[in-house]
Amino acid sequence: MTTDLLGYIAAFLTTTSFLPQVIRTLRTGDTRSISFAMYLMLVAGVATWLAYGLLLGALPIVLANGITLLLASIILVMKWREIRAGRKES
Amino acid sequence: MTTDLLGYIAAFLTTTSFLPQVIRTLRTGDTRSISFAMYLMLVAGVATWLAYGLLLGALPIVLANGITLLLASIILVMKWREIRAGRKES
Repeated sequence: MTTDLLGYIAAFLTTTSFLPQVIRTLRTGDTRSISFAMYLMLVAGVATWLAYGLLLGALPIVLANGITLLLASIILVMKWREIRAGRKES
Repeated sequence: MTTDLLGYIAAFLTTTSFLPQVIRTLRTGDTRSISFAMYLMLVAGVATWLAYGLLLGALPIVLANGITLLLASIILVMKWREIRAGRKES
């Protein structure tokens, strides 16, 4: 198992891991136990990784973080909507 | 702003982003809207990144993913407990 292959597996798992959460959140509309602060920091962090990858011209970093940015942003928006709809943070 | 600095900021944000979720989950015990599949894939992916960093001898990758592995595992265990306690996945 080459180290590169390990890197690609890790990138695939951590990037696609947000997909089940997006599907669940879109299906149930329930974000009560999800932390808004987490996704705010995560979206900011992933966007920074994306900028980092663009500056380095490192396509794998750009691709992985571009996808994660999209998925994490969906969850952030859904959580923001729930907060705005008055379901106060528990 | 050097590219390296951008990388450290990104690593700090994405690593510490799980902390508010851990605090919220430990405080409320509520994981209903959290996806078990997400955290299972995330823990597997972060563990793979950790192995990748160890193989490369890249301390920043080892540190960032070691912390994330700890935080994400706490959420995974809490979610697993809730499932086992019979509160079926909605």
